[in-house]
Amino acid sequence: MQAYQTLAGRFARLGALGDAAGILSWDRETLMPDGAADMRAEQLAQLAVIGHEILTAPETGDLIGRALDEAATLGEWERANLREMRRTYLHAAAVPADLVAASSRAASQSGMIWREARARSDFAMLAPALAETLRLGREVGAAKGAAFGLDPYDALLDGYDPGMRRAAIDPLFETLRAELPGLVAAVRERQAAEPAPLPLPGPFPVAAQKALGERLMRAVGFDVTRGRLDVSLHPFCGGATDDVRITTRYDEADASGALMGVLHETGHALYEQGLPPAWRHQPVGAARGMTLHESQSLLVEMQACRSAEFCAYLAPALGETFGGAGPAWTPENLHRRYTRVEPGFIRVDADEVTYPAHILLRYTLERAMVAGDLAVADLPGAFNDGLRDLLGLTVPDDRRGCLQDIHWPGGSFGYFPTYTLGAMAAAQLFRAACAAVPSIPNDLASGDFAALRGWLRTNVHARASLLETDELLREATGKPLGADNFLRHLRARYLGAS
Amino acid sequence: MQAYQTLAGRFARLGALGDAAGILSWDRETLMPDGAADMRAEQLAQLAVIGHEILTAPETGDLIGRALDEAATLGEWERANLREMRRTYLHAAAVPADLVAASSRAASQSGMIWREARARSDFAMLAPALAETLRLGREVGAAKGAAFGLDPYDALLDGYDPGMRRAAIDPLFETLRAELPGLVAAVRERQAAEPAPLPLPGPFPVAAQKALGERLMRAVGFDVTRGRLDVSLHPFCGGATDDVRITTRYDEADASGALMGVLHETGHALYEQGLPPAWRHQPVGAARGMTLHESQSLLVEMQACRSAEFCAYLAPALGETFGGAGPAWTPENLHRRYTRVEPGFIRVDADEVTYPAHILLRYTLERAMVAGDLAVADLPGAFNDGLRDLLGLTVPDDRRGCLQDIHWPGGSFGYFPTYTLGAMAAAQLFRAACAAVPSIPNDLASGDFAALRGWLRTNVHARASLLETDELLREATGKPLGADNFLRHLRARYLGAS
Repeated sequence: MQAYQTLAGRFARLGALGDAAGILSWDRETLMPDGAADMRAEQLAQLAVIGHEILTAPETGDLIGRALDEAATLGEWERANLREMRRTYLHAAAVPADLVAASSRAASQSGMIWREARARSDFAMLAPALAETLRLGREVGAAKGAAFGLDPYDALLDGYDPGMRRAAIDPLFETLRAELPGLVAAVRERQAAEPAPLPLPGPFPVAAQKALGERLMRAVGFDVTRGRLDVSLHPFCGGATDDVRITTRYDEADASGALMGVLHETGHALYEQGLPPAWRHQPVGAARGMTLHESQSLLVEMQACRSAEFCAYLAPALGETFGGAGPAWTPENLHRRYTRVEPGFIRVDADEVTYPAHILLRYTLERAMVAGDLAVADLPGAFNDGLRDLLGLTVPDDRRGCLQDIHWPGGSFGYFPTYTLGAMAAAQLFRAACAAVPSIPNDLASGDFAALRGWLRTNVHARASLLETDELLREATGKPLGADNFLRHLRARYLGAS
Repeated sequence: MQAYQTLAGRFARLGALGDAAGILSWDRETLMPDGAADMRAEQLAQLAVIGHEILTAPETGDLIGRALDEAATLGEWERANLREMRRTYLHAAAVPADLVAASSRAASQSGMIWREARARSDFAMLAPALAETLRLGREVGAAKGAAFGLDPYDALLDGYDPGMRRAAIDPLFETLRAELPGLVAAVRERQAAEPAPLPLPGPFPVAAQKALGERLMRAVGFDVTRGRLDVSLHPFCGGATDDVRITTRYDEADASGALMGVLHETGHALYEQGLPPAWRHQPVGAARGMTLHESQSLLVEMQACRSAEFCAYLAPALGETFGGAGPAWTPENLHRRYTRVEPGFIRVDADEVTYPAHILLRYTLERAMVAGDLAVADLPGAFNDGLRDLLGLTVPDDRRGCLQDIHWPGGSFGYFPTYTLGAMAAAQLFRAACAAVPSIPNDLASGDFAALRGWLRTNVHARASLLETDELLREATGKPLGADNFLRHLRARYLGAS
């Protein structure tokens, strides 16, 4: 146990450093004055470098080797912790320090240029920096791939979603690619025949939106003694252990963006707040990966809170909060608004039926870029062709095309698929939860999330990184990640299929 | 230059770690949810331990030795930086790691017990923990004293105010001890013969107080692109480089506490914001010490903002903000309120004439405790005797006596004198500023701080830790720290002496 205990101490320190960075990053997005940006970047860089030095010190590798030799003396969680320590170590140690620094600098640089290039819809402005970020991202993928015995794209994917592989994703995404166009067309036809949703007349004062958002957070189960809700330009869930900070942004003309955003981030927060206290700051005590993380936000937002049942709870709460009454404020109209399907250019604004098309496109393109089969110069054309094929839309400019997301300029290759994998996992988990506790849909109609939350606590949150994603899903739902529950959910909600 | 440059890199990292801790500490006092306390303590402890490890690594001492050998190749600021690096290193390396940990734990412990003991006014509850904190504090003082060739109390003092010594303080404090009782009596007699200040009728809504506070901050010169104003239970100035966070607390029945508090903290903030950008994160680029830091807050609050001139600016601003008019809202009444002298039990509520008595008492007692001449069990009696001698007050309970301050339970021995040394330095600097720029008092009457701020920038802020405190004062005011300008200020303001 000696080597393992020493490792646990090192990882506890890394966990505390990660927490510190989490609060500093949250502060940067919410409260930090503009003039502090350079110094904040320096603080975060120093914390990252210190963490990387601790993680990649030669003794860490030695200790892992010795701990593996004594693994027979360890319990189940300790063994899983050691497995995750090794994975974390390999991801860090695989990449030479100068490549870490160069790729991080290049990503910061192209991320900054991207803001300007998107505003001007000027892809040529971004192209050289993006090409450099891609070049270094491919080098990182190759280095990690060599360490893990994986191809570069799988190695990058593993950094966001441990254990996830192209070979698992491809058949799932092919199913969606085959089913979705017909499904979208059928839903659009059905919705065209129904009354159009009525707009809710505003204004929606920010203070009232915030109070309602906090009431909904608490209803879902957010522990306000271990977290906060604040405002940022781009909503996120961040912060630190026992201190989960979620954010939203308010529009006084329309409350639904902020409310659904709060519910989405609350799903992420529930996962973080439900992780096992005994494993704080240890790798096995962390959330399993981005697919399961996104499944928790989508389960709360899409599966639970856009359901007809929850709309029956939310509609009177909205009416009471904002003094609304009449046909626009009925549960039925609210549900029609929250389930409206309409193909559009912007991924983050997409409904749950057309959203996967945006991901299929990006997955195909980033795989090709990482494989060296798609040059940055050819990206806009490939992007626009893809969106036409998938959603029948003609991209009018790159701002609404391949310039809309920060992921690639920010150096994130291998992240996009987890959004739609998360949507699949959400449908699969929600169905299993309702099968285990049949009262869940009715509970939602009175804003009661206790049973759903209890099931998620036991079957997802409290398991942290003990299991790989597919193992966890198999134990929770009886099978590994699949597309069928997601498609069944879409057909039921949008086509009335049983 | 090689060794010096390597050291500069190490200290830059320490500076960034200190900044990170500054923001985490600010967040703890302002926004952090209660349930995050343990994890936040862990984050701060890990940052402190990492910093201590970097600072006390054997190579740091070696590098300092080599850099001193090549000091002839360094410029004036680099040499001063090396001197401050050495001082910082000695303070850290002098104390064995287990003593650092033990004294820090004991201080945390007795600081926690103190909260409860103060609330209950139960000294016996605190005594054992305080005795342990004192015992370890004396060990730390002895260890630092051995490293610096100083007696333990001077070594502790040096940690808060580099270069400050009992031998310098004693004659200044003896002057105050001789002069103040007569001065207090004369001021009280004079004020008793004047009309009593009229209370300002409230309420004072928090939003309006905050807006006025921010307006005054900006008038004084606070750079809002590099700092913020927020709320905390105990007001402070903290944060990080280029990100100075000041706090206050609001009372809707009385705006003067928050306003004067904001002005006080703005004085601290001006110092931090005026430090030389070229020396960020280096020891020579930091504020000189607690005496000069307190001088900057007291110069803004006491010297400038409680002056008759500034009251002429503030009174109409208050009336306009809170819709007040009539005799209570005149500059004259405001000035009477802000200069009212009345001996009381509580140090933090004391006026500037009686405040030094609280410090003289604490200085005498903590010197005796550190020297081993006063046992913790005898502290309440000694405290109460001292307050009777100095201010003629009979302490009714320990809550209003020796339990009122967190400093000693929190492990701070050697800090108290800097409050009154700061008041002296404030008077000395303000007089020199007004001599150099005679328009300053009149400028304050129109809320114009530009000339005062410019003089402070040049003569105090921009010099950072280039000089020792007395050298800086000699260059700025023509003489080292003295009590005469402070006494002259009190006689002028409170007795009408010219």
